[in-house]
Amino acid sequence: MRAGPRESIYFEPGKVKAAIVTCGGLCPGLNDVIRQLTITLEEYGVNDIKGIRYGFRGFFEQEGELRQPIKLTSDLVETIHLEGGSILGSSRGGSDTSDIVDAIAEMQLDFLFVIGGNGSHAGALAIDNMCRERNMPTAVIGIPKTIDNDILLLDRTFGFQTAVDEAIKAIRSAAIEARSAFNGVGLVRVMGRQSGFIAMHAALASGEVDVCLIPEIDTTLEGQGGVLAHVRRVLTRKEHCVIVVAEGAGQEILGKMGETDASGNPVLQNFAKFLQKEMKEKLADCSPDIKYIDPTYMVRACPTNGSDAVYCSLLGQNAVHAAFAGLSGVTVGLCNGHYVYLPIPPLISRAREVDPNGRMWERLKLAIQQPVFSASA
Amino acid sequence: MRAGPRESIYFEPGKVKAAIVTCGGLCPGLNDVIRQLTITLEEYGVNDIKGIRYGFRGFFEQEGELRQPIKLTSDLVETIHLEGGSILGSSRGGSDTSDIVDAIAEMQLDFLFVIGGNGSHAGALAIDNMCRERNMPTAVIGIPKTIDNDILLLDRTFGFQTAVDEAIKAIRSAAIEARSAFNGVGLVRVMGRQSGFIAMHAALASGEVDVCLIPEIDTTLEGQGGVLAHVRRVLTRKEHCVIVVAEGAGQEILGKMGETDASGNPVLQNFAKFLQKEMKEKLADCSPDIKYIDPTYMVRACPTNGSDAVYCSLLGQNAVHAAFAGLSGVTVGLCNGHYVYLPIPPLISRAREVDPNGRMWERLKLAIQQPVFSASA
Amino acid sequence: MRAGPRESIYFEPGKVKAAIVTCGGLCPGLNDVIRQLTITLEEYGVNDIKGIRYGFRGFFEQEGELRQPIKLTSDLVETIHLEGGSILGSSRGGSDTSDIVDAIAEMQLDFLFVIGGNGSHAGALAIDNMCRERNMPTAVIGIPKTIDNDILLLDRTFGFQTAVDEAIKAIRSAAIEARSAFNGVGLVRVMGRQSGFIAMHAALASGEVDVCLIPEIDTTLEGQGGVLAHVRRVLTRKEHCVIVVAEGAGQEILGKMGETDASGNPVLQNFAKFLQKEMKEKLADCSPDIKYIDPTYMVRACPTNGSDAVYCSLLGQNAVHAAFAGLSGVTVGLCNGHYVYLPIPPLISRAREVDPNGRMWERLKLAIQQPVFSASA
Amino acid sequence: MRAGPRESIYFEPGKVKAAIVTCGGLCPGLNDVIRQLTITLEEYGVNDIKGIRYGFRGFFEQEGELRQPIKLTSDLVETIHLEGGSILGSSRGGSDTSDIVDAIAEMQLDFLFVIGGNGSHAGALAIDNMCRERNMPTAVIGIPKTIDNDILLLDRTFGFQTAVDEAIKAIRSAAIEARSAFNGVGLVRVMGRQSGFIAMHAALASGEVDVCLIPEIDTTLEGQGGVLAHVRRVLTRKEHCVIVVAEGAGQEILGKMGETDASGNPVLQNFAKFLQKEMKEKLADCSPDIKYIDPTYMVRACPTNGSDAVYCSLLGQNAVHAAFAGLSGVTVGLCNGHYVYLPIPPLISRAREVDPNGRMWERLKLAIQQPVFSASA
Repeated sequence: MRAGPRESIYFEPGKVKAAIVTCGGLCPGLNDVIRQLTITLEEYGVNDIKGIRYGFRGFFEQEGELRQPIKLTSDLVETIHLEGGSILGSSRGGSDTSDIVDAIAEMQLDFLFVIGGNGSHAGALAIDNMCRERNMPTAVIGIPKTIDNDILLLDRTFGFQTAVDEAIKAIRSAAIEARSAFNGVGLVRVMGRQSGFIAMHAALASGEVDVCLIPEIDTTLEGQGGVLAHVRRVLTRKEHCVIVVAEGAGQEILGKMGETDASGNPVLQNFAKFLQKEMKEKLADCSPDIKYIDPTYMVRACPTNGSDAVYCSLLGQNAVHAAFAGLSGVTVGLCNGHYVYLPIPPLISRAREVDPNGRMWERLKLAIQQPVFSASA
Repeated sequence: MRAGPRESIYFEPGKVKAAIVTCGGLCPGLNDVIRQLTITLEEYGVNDIKGIRYGFRGFFEQEGELRQPIKLTSDLVETIHLEGGSILGSSRGGSDTSDIVDAIAEMQLDFLFVIGGNGSHAGALAIDNMCRERNMPTAVIGIPKTIDNDILLLDRTFGFQTAVDEAIKAIRSAAIEARSAFNGVGLVRVMGRQSGFIAMHAALASGEVDVCLIPEIDTTLEGQGGVLAHVRRVLTRKEHCVIVVAEGAGQEILGKMGETDASGNPVLQNFAKFLQKEMKEKLADCSPDIKYIDPTYMVRACPTNGSDAVYCSLLGQNAVHAAFAGLSGVTVGLCNGHYVYLPIPPLISRAREVDPNGRMWERLKLAIQQPVFSASA
Repeated sequence: MRAGPRESIYFEPGKVKAAIVTCGGLCPGLNDVIRQLTITLEEYGVNDIKGIRYGFRGFFEQEGELRQPIKLTSDLVETIHLEGGSILGSSRGGSDTSDIVDAIAEMQLDFLFVIGGNGSHAGALAIDNMCRERNMPTAVIGIPKTIDNDILLLDRTFGFQTAVDEAIKAIRSAAIEARSAFNGVGLVRVMGRQSGFIAMHAALASGEVDVCLIPEIDTTLEGQGGVLAHVRRVLTRKEHCVIVVAEGAGQEILGKMGETDASGNPVLQNFAKFLQKEMKEKLADCSPDIKYIDPTYMVRACPTNGSDAVYCSLLGQNAVHAAFAGLSGVTVGLCNGHYVYLPIPPLISRAREVDPNGRMWERLKLAIQQPVFSASA
Repeated sequence: MRAGPRESIYFEPGKVKAAIVTCGGLCPGLNDVIRQLTITLEEYGVNDIKGIRYGFRGFFEQEGELRQPIKLTSDLVETIHLEGGSILGSSRGGSDTSDIVDAIAEMQLDFLFVIGGNGSHAGALAIDNMCRERNMPTAVIGIPKTIDNDILLLDRTFGFQTAVDEAIKAIRSAAIEARSAFNGVGLVRVMGRQSGFIAMHAALASGEVDVCLIPEIDTTLEGQGGVLAHVRRVLTRKEHCVIVVAEGAGQEILGKMGETDASGNPVLQNFAKFLQKEMKEKLADCSPDIKYIDPTYMVRACPTNGSDAVYCSLLGQNAVHAAFAGLSGVTVGLCNGHYVYLPIPPLISRAREVDPNGRMWERLKLAIQQPVFSASA
């Protein structure tokens, strides 16, 4: 359904009580979305806008004064987008849906805007369902947030392009360190638990990467066609090498030796650190001088670049239009160049991934001259 | 036609002589495109890659040593994308097509890559036609360059998003100057001769703009519904005001009092400066403290952000694929999310413009609370 | 007198009423100083801290609600240093001293901190004198602010190093524009009405400047040893040239043809623009492609770099120590590496200038290979 | 001895063979110094300038083609200062002095410029002594390089202010992460093995630090007056906390449990990581959400800010003046505001340290409200 303002609105703006919550890890643009939601709500005439503190926890852990929701106004949010982070605070992890819905009922919320990832959208959906069951009028609208850009159907997620810009800075530093040492190796670990979009785009954009490892493709370290032999060849040719590793890459190697958590899921191991150790040992004859950089929190805490700022503004506007149009249990996003409203379930069915046979990955391989890694050359 | 590598190639790479030329004003990404063209040509096996100096002039004004083409190699271009500008140099203005084609013939060029705007694409087309007439095998491939983002059919042009990022910095400075003075007015003139895309996007992204004037919409200064009265109201409410003016805005006002050039075209007047004068006079009772910023050359000289860097790389790759596929007289770009080859004539028939009735302009007006300016309120 | 905390303090902190005012043009660091004054006052135990709006005007033009002083607290100022400008607002120009002192008396201020340049320090001195005459206990403490770094006795003024950093960015853009055009000339006008410190330091630091013109040295344009002939030689050798002009340079040339104001002082003419015109005419055979950049407001509106941030913090702390020590009519600064309190009159007797025969100017000339300009070669 | 050009020079410039070597870890400004040395040597008339690859190793490990010295010219170095790192490459660790002197003799070097830290200055001194013993005319000039700013007698070392600027960025990210989480703790590890200058200045400049730990002061973790109790109090008051730890801090705690290397020196442990673990355990009731950032390589790989760029230029100029003046075995630096030549031994006798009883540390404690940590409150 195409997003945008509607002719009829289903709420009397002056009486609407709205709330905004940000969930999960930081991502550039949270404040931009909060700001535009607030401004657009005020434009409609809404005066009662609450900012829930520290994610869903803010609904059911309201002990101290600081945990009370913030009253949001356009004056308060005027320049919050100039800084990264979330002025509301955020937190990972869920909670009991009925506790949240109790709090929503107590606050008599008409609108709830949930800015979060797959897990939080699942939470939003559960909240929406329970509101329907209890005959509450609350419209629950999601705004998809994942710095990894791994949400199905969407052209991209907000903050992703900014994250790429910032990851490039780390890669650039790694490249300078690498070039300034004999057989210098710059090793950068970037975000991307299940999807390698940040690694792929930052590697391509930086123009300074020799090896890019992503979760979607099993990593072959050993053998003539493996990563280690490739790094050795790059060092021989250029005397330095730059490697980008998405945090979810190489887990199949470590998984065999790693732990699983209570639910049996493999705990994400630090494969970049493992690769560092492997290179030190198995390329010892090259004496590689390895510099490891993990820019994760410096990326997450950034304010948005222009393109993401525009995107966040439009997501914020359209989320408010959706609520006034009487929609609930939907999310908003850019899909094939159009802003649309989407039902939540298909979006969160699984993570969007880089296609190892797709054009984009082919382009990266061409640009950085990376072979398909395999045990034989 | 979908862009990308082809199964059959129509040239023997080891014998190919290629040349690259950059035309017109600077735009972030020129070096990125030059770099990727060079790297991709080398990947195909091309060894003879010439960089023509200072635009089309480099073809027919080869006097001094410095004007000789640069021999481009992947080593030479390795890090040129880290700096703005064009390592080849650029120049505005055309030249006699037959002189250029004579030079192409003398150099025995198989490929010519023209990175330039509408005028240069018209030049590329004329070169292509004359090459066909003379039965020369030269493939002429365009790569559209316009910082204004005003090329028809394309989703965007390279450098545009970077330009928006940089324009935002100027707007931010203007906003700080405005807020720090009583009735402070920050006035920023941004690029956009015929199209207001930079102004619109930067105004929306910055979140600090009160008035945005673009060439596509005639500007009404006077009257209760005019710009001056709106600025007065903003000052009364907030004690400061930020205005963004695309360079082509308001020409219909100045045109009446301005000059025309030899061809009868109106010479672009500095409307932002005119507006400054008007505000000083007609808002004299507010004593507006106006700070004028023109960031044009600081924007044009920037290196690319991540998103533009990726775009430039893919344009460069696809331009080379096109040449090897035997195409000529085409240009490459992103169209509805796909990289495609396009014939030149429809692209350059006129400038792409912001639709004053479109969604994007509506979203901007909502976000910055700008009315439709008209003589009556 | 060495600055710092004293053993005895002459005020009872809990009863102190303090006010802060920022005067004149913007300069990086105003918010840093306001912030540290506030934090240090609170540390001493002061609770009543007023921020006067828009310079000295805020004392006697208190009409609307917005003009009322802001109540400053450490919570309010916590992150104001992250943005440029002054949260209090500033304004140029003085006012009647007795009006200001009336307002001070009415507010029963014990401390007044005046952040401003030579003019504002003269104002602070007059206020201090009148307070003494009226037997008011108010301690008036100055904090010297001039982006031009032109205050006598001080090692440097806050914001200056940041200004140099930002001016370098403009020079870098100018250099890229210059290199990317045939006979490209990048022309940058930087701050410096009477003193060329910003021009000199930015030219030296950027490593990309060929000509640096400052107010302290009369400019010779014509003749074999003049600027124009030098630019021609640089163009012949390098095909591009970068010129930095302090705003006060070349006034002796324009003064002859320029206006004087009511007091007979020459109004500062835009010599950089004049030089642009001269080069177009007198180097017409080179067809110089001149790009003019004036980064003034983008420089002034910047937040501080680390070194200036430290400096501002220490100025703020020491200003508060001075007030509690019972001093008045003094200013604080870094002098030969030590933080000291200084009487105002010697500081403001004239502008500090670059010594044309000094080491620093010699070093610049060596680094950029600039001759002494004179009519004969 | 005051630095600068001399009336008499002791070498015939046209016959001088000079070499430059960069040693140790990266530091902002290496390329600036290399550049200015080259430019100044050329100004004197020197044509034979060699850049030794990868530190002292480049003297005795000249196997492959890439290890051959680079021929340095002002054209080659024109823009190298725009990027961080060292175009020569660098390496840690020494080598046999006689091997190096053999290589110097074979190259017939008249000048050797050694850009390095304490160890490399000791090396330079040994080289100088052996050259004297062998009656070689080689002038050996040091340029002190340590990002930690820990060289005795000098006002500061080049790259330090840039390092502070960059460290602040990491602190800012940590502060945003901290504020955006409930009981969020931003933990930043910055450089400073023996001296806490970077930590102290970055903490003061950032204005966002609550705790700053440096090597000069033993760290008390436990007890009512310890760091952990202070962090708990900060969390209770503000719900977030930002901590900066110099890499050499807290070693006295870890040393008891840590290893010593072959020489008996304690290997530097990662105290910041230890502190993270301690906080998780001992503040478990607060559930601190700790984000750890180590920006080391992103700081080291930076290009200089303006102030450091000026400093590097003047060091480069003065080092060349020293060599031509016939000095050897000296180093150059800024001392009480003057550029001087200094004998090497006193400089490297020990590391310069922050004075725990000095004014600067007092100012920091006042600014960030940090108590003296001790077991009892």
